[in-house]
Amino acid sequence: MKNIFIIGCGLLGSSLLRRIHKKKIAKKIFVYEKSKKNTEKIKKLRLPCTMVKKPQEAVKKSDLIIFCTPMSEYKKIILSINKYLKVNHIITDIGSSKQTSIKIIKQNLKKNISWTSSHPIAGSEVSGPENGKQSLFEDKWCILIKGKQRNIKHIKFLNFFWKKMGSKTVIMSAERHDKIFSITSHLPHLIAYNLVKSAQDFQRIQKYDMIKYSAGGLRDFSRIAASNEIMWRDIFFDNSQNISKAIDIFIKNLEGFRKDINSKKSKSIINKLIKAKKVRSQILKLKQDINKPDFGRSNLT
Amino acid sequence: MKNIFIIGCGLLGSSLLRRIHKKKIAKKIFVYEKSKKNTEKIKKLRLPCTMVKKPQEAVKKSDLIIFCTPMSEYKKIILSINKYLKVNHIITDIGSSKQTSIKIIKQNLKKNISWTSSHPIAGSEVSGPENGKQSLFEDKWCILIKGKQRNIKHIKFLNFFWKKMGSKTVIMSAERHDKIFSITSHLPHLIAYNLVKSAQDFQRIQKYDMIKYSAGGLRDFSRIAASNEIMWRDIFFDNSQNISKAIDIFIKNLEGFRKDINSKKSKSIINKLIKAKKVRSQILKLKQDINKPDFGRSNLT
Repeated sequence: MKNIFIIGCGLLGSSLLRRIHKKKIAKKIFVYEKSKKNTEKIKKLRLPCTMVKKPQEAVKKSDLIIFCTPMSEYKKIILSINKYLKVNHIITDIGSSKQTSIKIIKQNLKKNISWTSSHPIAGSEVSGPENGKQSLFEDKWCILIKGKQRNIKHIKFLNFFWKKMGSKTVIMSAERHDKIFSITSHLPHLIAYNLVKSAQDFQRIQKYDMIKYSAGGLRDFSRIAASNEIMWRDIFFDNSQNISKAIDIFIKNLEGFRKDINSKKSKSIINKLIKAKKVRSQILKLKQDINKPDFGRSNLT
Repeated sequence: MKNIFIIGCGLLGSSLLRRIHKKKIAKKIFVYEKSKKNTEKIKKLRLPCTMVKKPQEAVKKSDLIIFCTPMSEYKKIILSINKYLKVNHIITDIGSSKQTSIKIIKQNLKKNISWTSSHPIAGSEVSGPENGKQSLFEDKWCILIKGKQRNIKHIKFLNFFWKKMGSKTVIMSAERHDKIFSITSHLPHLIAYNLVKSAQDFQRIQKYDMIKYSAGGLRDFSRIAASNEIMWRDIFFDNSQNISKAIDIFIKNLEGFRKDINSKKSKSIINKLIKAKKVRSQILKLKQDINKPDFGRSNLT
């Protein structure tokens, strides 16, 4: 690997930058960042990169191009760099939803150029280059998307690349990816936003000062509902069909719970609660979370 | 204060026991625990208390009686101790829902005996005496319920008691309590259980192995959905009317989100997401959560 070009240097982009630098897998790292605020932060943090003012400036000099912008930015950037792209460019992105974004990429990307999509399951409720860290991808899954026109060489390379980032990799279709993440990620985020909104509505109607009593559950949702709004709007729009189906399952089950509660069906509800509890042990066994009660908020004894 | 009697010694009861012992505010601490498993744990842990085999054994010798069992146990225990209760007994409980449980208490408690309900906003997804800790109530809110037949002396004493446990106290009506916590605690728990159940259903139908990709959101809900099932069944049953209303607000808002997503109403959705995000800063400002991204899961840089 010679030169890497990171387009968009927020939480994810700057984490990649830090890791690539640490692992010394690039000769040069170029960065394009649209936001002035972020650009200033990157300079102040002295992140080890060469900043370019327009994406087209770095394309020719780069071997690997990684899109780390919100998905709604892809089209514009693709159109601006198209004429500089060559067949041996390895291009990827880190978008959280795939089918629609891949369609947009295909519609706009120059012919014969290959794009292999990635999705590292890493992130946080905080954003911006100041919050990035080289360890962000460590022990996390990174999904590589195989399409009909897959480029085996590029998939192999990206597999190597993400392993260098610290990730475990898995290859799947965009369709399967979007179905899985509509349930494990997109719906949970929507639900968190929705719960916080419902609490706000309730507070406004009842004129109760209640956010201070949020430690009983609401506060955990508020963390997820603090995630970047542009990124999440894009995901919700991109994967709307699967999310809508997930909402159907969710509402159906919620009505089932309500029925059990209102008619005091003890056995049915206890069964459901015990079953749900089991997922937690699975998640801990799969090392997808820390095994500390209350997220280890307090370790005092 | 002379002697304190803790009825039910799981997570909350054993935390009280540890704190009372540490603060030396009782001469003797009696404990009644129904479960054999927990009783053995208490003995093995050598928790500083005198165990009794029947609740009635300790009532006469005690000044303060604290119910720390699931709410569905109250009636049976009240009936068994009624004849030993005297007017100067201070009785409280730590139940998470109040209107229905207070009705049951009133219906069954001997006449002229006073009961002042408490609700410490403290807990965890783990249960049992082995997980209790003396610091559990520190800096947490404890709600004291004032009914029509309030006993000012007892309220004053319990205010002092919970402050000794480390809590901040506030007094409100059962009605107001149940409305507030239907939104800040009961609905969030139901939603968490429901989301995990929906993921399980989806996994079963699609035959996808997807729990391992839960780090993108689902895992946080799974923590809440690992809470004690008996306790939560009791809360859902007890506060069913308010929870049902909260479900209505929740579903209405979720349908609103779905509409925005399906018709790509960017401005409306961005507004909602930004508004929801603000609650997070309020919660952090009110010190209801730790200010570490990702719950401080990883502090590596």
